[in-house]
Amino acid sequence: MSSLNTAAELWFTPAMQEPLRTIEWVGVKPGARLPGRVRMIDQTRLPEKLVYLETDNLQKIWTAIKTLQVRGAPAIGIAAAMGVVAAVQKSKARTGAELVAEVERAADHLATSRPTAVNLFWALDRMRRLARVNHRQAPDAIKQRLVREAMKIRDEDAAMCRAIGRHGAKLLKNGFTVLTHCNAGGLATAEFGTALAPIYTARNQGKDISVFADETRPLLQGARLTAWELSQAGVEVTLICDNTAAQVMKEGRIDCVMVGADRIAANGDSANKIGTYSVALAAKAHGIPFYVLAPTSTFDLTLVSGEKIPIEERAAEEVTHGFGRRTAPHGVKVYSPAFDVTPARLITAIVCERGILRPPFGAVLRGCSRQR
Amino acid sequence: MSSLNTAAELWFTPAMQEPLRTIEWVGVKPGARLPGRVRMIDQTRLPEKLVYLETDNLQKIWTAIKTLQVRGAPAIGIAAAMGVVAAVQKSKARTGAELVAEVERAADHLATSRPTAVNLFWALDRMRRLARVNHRQAPDAIKQRLVREAMKIRDEDAAMCRAIGRHGAKLLKNGFTVLTHCNAGGLATAEFGTALAPIYTARNQGKDISVFADETRPLLQGARLTAWELSQAGVEVTLICDNTAAQVMKEGRIDCVMVGADRIAANGDSANKIGTYSVALAAKAHGIPFYVLAPTSTFDLTLVSGEKIPIEERAAEEVTHGFGRRTAPHGVKVYSPAFDVTPARLITAIVCERGILRPPFGAVLRGCSRQR
Repeated sequence: MSSLNTAAELWFTPAMQEPLRTIEWVGVKPGARLPGRVRMIDQTRLPEKLVYLETDNLQKIWTAIKTLQVRGAPAIGIAAAMGVVAAVQKSKARTGAELVAEVERAADHLATSRPTAVNLFWALDRMRRLARVNHRQAPDAIKQRLVREAMKIRDEDAAMCRAIGRHGAKLLKNGFTVLTHCNAGGLATAEFGTALAPIYTARNQGKDISVFADETRPLLQGARLTAWELSQAGVEVTLICDNTAAQVMKEGRIDCVMVGADRIAANGDSANKIGTYSVALAAKAHGIPFYVLAPTSTFDLTLVSGEKIPIEERAAEEVTHGFGRRTAPHGVKVYSPAFDVTPARLITAIVCERGILRPPFGAVLRGCSRQR
Repeated sequence: MSSLNTAAELWFTPAMQEPLRTIEWVGVKPGARLPGRVRMIDQTRLPEKLVYLETDNLQKIWTAIKTLQVRGAPAIGIAAAMGVVAAVQKSKARTGAELVAEVERAADHLATSRPTAVNLFWALDRMRRLARVNHRQAPDAIKQRLVREAMKIRDEDAAMCRAIGRHGAKLLKNGFTVLTHCNAGGLATAEFGTALAPIYTARNQGKDISVFADETRPLLQGARLTAWELSQAGVEVTLICDNTAAQVMKEGRIDCVMVGADRIAANGDSANKIGTYSVALAAKAHGIPFYVLAPTSTFDLTLVSGEKIPIEERAAEEVTHGFGRRTAPHGVKVYSPAFDVTPARLITAIVCERGILRPPFGAVLRGCSRQR
């Protein structure tokens, strides 16, 4: 995808030494993909330090997903696909069938890391299917196919993000201020982002766009990642506490809301970071357009509505031990769902790589998925 | 008010050694009010430590208000009144007029501590008026009147909270779950609280009441103070991030919302901690009653609507340096209003010491203020 990294399309600042790559597969030796390693930005260290995690260890990749060193639905999918490659690349399997069984085991394990983002399962299924279809081939040949598939998932994601950026930028007029929640930027994807992609694209088109970023408790992805990423790219960003979004809307300072999604049901109901639903209610109350931006790999048409989307519950300590210091009484009960579901009726449009989808979403979501 | 502290009405757990007193005036020598000191719980140390701050220094009292060692509209009013006494009790003024001038100067200074809570100005005005009316008296006589007035403001507040509790408890059925934002409990008042008063009263009446407490960014009054205070009192409390309130409502787990207020305009628009407006929008969307509980000293009938309520903006560091650790990139722009205004149309009822006021609020608010 290096052709995409022209100066006009950077999502990082030109002052940086090299383009940021959220997650990629790097061959150990020049010119060969295998053996290789996953290289990803350790997002738990931002904004204090830009540190890369490089590993070919399945358990470390599982932990990276679980502990949000890599996060964001598309990036999780990529990490999982690369995790499968890492798990089997040194396999001593003598037959294709043996290797396929190892792929299944690795995929089964990676599938237990996080429950809500459907891209995880979608990417693992692609890897499984590819292995199964090629089970008659030699193990080494299957390994080569798997690593190509994982890299393809990454590159497709980067291209999807660019496409979402092109479509979404049509919704942004010069001078617009966008409110976003959590991080659905380059750090949540291969690069460029979903919810932030239109902002980068519009900016690259010469439009003046500014952003209000919800800090996004408990893990502060908005403060730590979105504010950092937008600042790096030279986009004006103002950080607010989650509970301030409605007030900023009331003050007339927001032209539209753009958020990502972790899973979109057949009727358009969209799961995203906890707090998104609250922002959608506030946007509705103020007549502000509310856009969900996500690739078609986020669509889960097996679910009729959002009610069936499994919602991960996170540990109480993420709320009670902010950042090294206890901020709530010992033993207090905590309820900390990682996601909520915004009902389709609150969504003005869903933007995917195919275009801008308007309600009612049922037919158009099915249409987009069929083209996939 | 010791007669009120019967076992049935405690807002602290009977297991504690002595009743919690958020703020009180303590004479240095037994039996004499003057000279004396303000004694208050240092709320910046909770929930880790229960520490009392005792001082007769005007500047320390000003700082205590400014830095939220004492906070909550009614408690701020009490602190300011006691601050005036502390400032003049050792005065060498030879005439009443000289002492009145010192009272005015102390009040002017204390008035600069925080802009939004009207109780601050209301309490300072009571102290000024009392001094002015008695300017022909000897300085020592005026000092005695001032200290009695400050203690009266405290005791009246305690009684108002009990009355709000009695009225508000009628809104709570057995088994109800209440959502609250920030801390409008005993720690925000002389004792017992405003928004939490009906919960304590209903519990003392034998009703089973549980609470969801918003953590309330940036300073976490919900996590640090409300969760602590309710736990101490043996009330079941579940802590949530602010952005989770709408989701908990959607899950059908909330029967009503109860919040305090820092200033209520003539039409019922109510200023309260930032995020209250967002909660009110969510309550409206889910058909959940939204109650504001505050004494009549919080009413500001000089303001036609909430648009004119001055809103304090807090320092960026409270958002970016959560808990001793930087959680946002250097130099990021922050917008951190301390309060927002919930329009009267989102308020189901205002509960004051006089009773439950229903919309339209204009006439009833005027009526209540006249009786004051």
